[in-house]
Amino acid sequence: MERVEQHACAGGRQEVWKHRSDVLNCEMKFGIFLPEVATRGEPCPVLYWLSGLTCTEQNFITKAGAQAHAAKHGVIVVAPDTSPRGDEVADDPAYDLGQGAGFYVNATQAPWSAHYRMQDYVAHELPELVERHFAANGQRGIMGHSMGGHGALITALRHPGRYASVSAFSPIVAPSQVPWGAKALTAYLGEDRQSWTAWDTVELIKQASESLPLLVDQGGADEFLSTQLRPELLEQACQTTGHPLTLRRQPGYDHSYYFIATFLADHFAHHAQALGR
Amino acid sequence: MERVEQHACAGGRQEVWKHRSDVLNCEMKFGIFLPEVATRGEPCPVLYWLSGLTCTEQNFITKAGAQAHAAKHGVIVVAPDTSPRGDEVADDPAYDLGQGAGFYVNATQAPWSAHYRMQDYVAHELPELVERHFAANGQRGIMGHSMGGHGALITALRHPGRYASVSAFSPIVAPSQVPWGAKALTAYLGEDRQSWTAWDTVELIKQASESLPLLVDQGGADEFLSTQLRPELLEQACQTTGHPLTLRRQPGYDHSYYFIATFLADHFAHHAQALGR
Repeated sequence: MERVEQHACAGGRQEVWKHRSDVLNCEMKFGIFLPEVATRGEPCPVLYWLSGLTCTEQNFITKAGAQAHAAKHGVIVVAPDTSPRGDEVADDPAYDLGQGAGFYVNATQAPWSAHYRMQDYVAHELPELVERHFAANGQRGIMGHSMGGHGALITALRHPGRYASVSAFSPIVAPSQVPWGAKALTAYLGEDRQSWTAWDTVELIKQASESLPLLVDQGGADEFLSTQLRPELLEQACQTTGHPLTLRRQPGYDHSYYFIATFLADHFAHHAQALGR
Repeated sequence: MERVEQHACAGGRQEVWKHRSDVLNCEMKFGIFLPEVATRGEPCPVLYWLSGLTCTEQNFITKAGAQAHAAKHGVIVVAPDTSPRGDEVADDPAYDLGQGAGFYVNATQAPWSAHYRMQDYVAHELPELVERHFAANGQRGIMGHSMGGHGALITALRHPGRYASVSAFSPIVAPSQVPWGAKALTAYLGEDRQSWTAWDTVELIKQASESLPLLVDQGGADEFLSTQLRPELLEQACQTTGHPLTLRRQPGYDHSYYFIATFLADHFAHHAQALGR
């Protein structure tokens, strides 16, 4: 582990670390914000943020204004990269496949399966690393945007009891049924659609063993709303199974960080309550 | 004038416009945040933000979290680019001269004098444009960072009565006495150092005809503190002349937007009070 950035921010510290990931078999970076209490060694809950297509660990830490909220609630925030990286890692010229587009799954198909195990990274290796090296109290929440909203929802649903809270901005809720998702799942998991159901929020909701409440914000002017995001599919699945969902449609808002920054305080409040802050 | 970006944000709208500048003789872009009251046509004060070396109109609007503060106070925020732009505009391979480094002066030396009249642009042409096209009430404040902190201070000091308030983050307070400033002023204004005094905050303070209070935040871990910024020169000039200055040294903070985002709420409060918000 090597610290590659360190900035005083909001009374605490925004840092970026790089480390060798065993799961992904490459070097990875993640951003971590430590509120002032954590810099003094007081154990704090950790809130994970998963970013969307094309993003790195930088987008959320520079654009969302998250540090002020994290400082207010005394929460550590960890923002990993969105895929394995490096010259030896398989890639694709398209923005929606390969590096920058890991989709938070464990790939089973060549050439992706050699590195693309982002689910194991975000759900296991990264939390273990964070809890070993920083003042974490073992409580966890998870949230994300777009592909990362999908990542947050499936990661929480696939690991009952592991996260105290989950939320998403403009998530891809049914990757099996939309172009971005079908393309990525075909590449990473193969043609057998049955294997996709373990990575699809709408499918996972149908078999959920715990009723972790979902908070989802969706912009009404989002350019991907009706083609890639389709929040009505999540709404229907939650209605059918009685899964608790707060879906807020925000008229006029698009898919950008201007949308995320506007409503992020509400997401922090949602997580902080569940995390005892 | 053409709107090239529009995003709902913080209950209002973040927009980017491009227009032909007569003063700069090129096409320019600026960001403008309109709080909800301004989108309904209610006249609001306008707060100008001047960015630092290498920046465009994008840095402040995407990284500072300013929109939430502007929405709270009902203030329009305008963030111009930092220099004239385009293939026909003189440039230099260095990051601290030419495009991205206009230093908010009116150049008198070839080849710069053909386009580099950033002072006339930010103090006259841009405000006139903004006040003609948006719901502005004629009240103005100005602030900025680094080269833009210098820009905000000299622009307010050169135009007594034009700005109700001024503030700066990590400003270059004495360009005549530091490497960044001496290089730029030599190129844009020539070797005669007497001509530089009209563009140097420490020199302008000595002849100020009004006592506009200055709010300045300076990070203690800023990598440019002792070589380029030298806030003690401003402190001495204000002490000598009795000019009101609040200089806040913030231990541990660097030159980045993490510093700006941390203390920006205080700057908005400073301006809002003077602007009657």
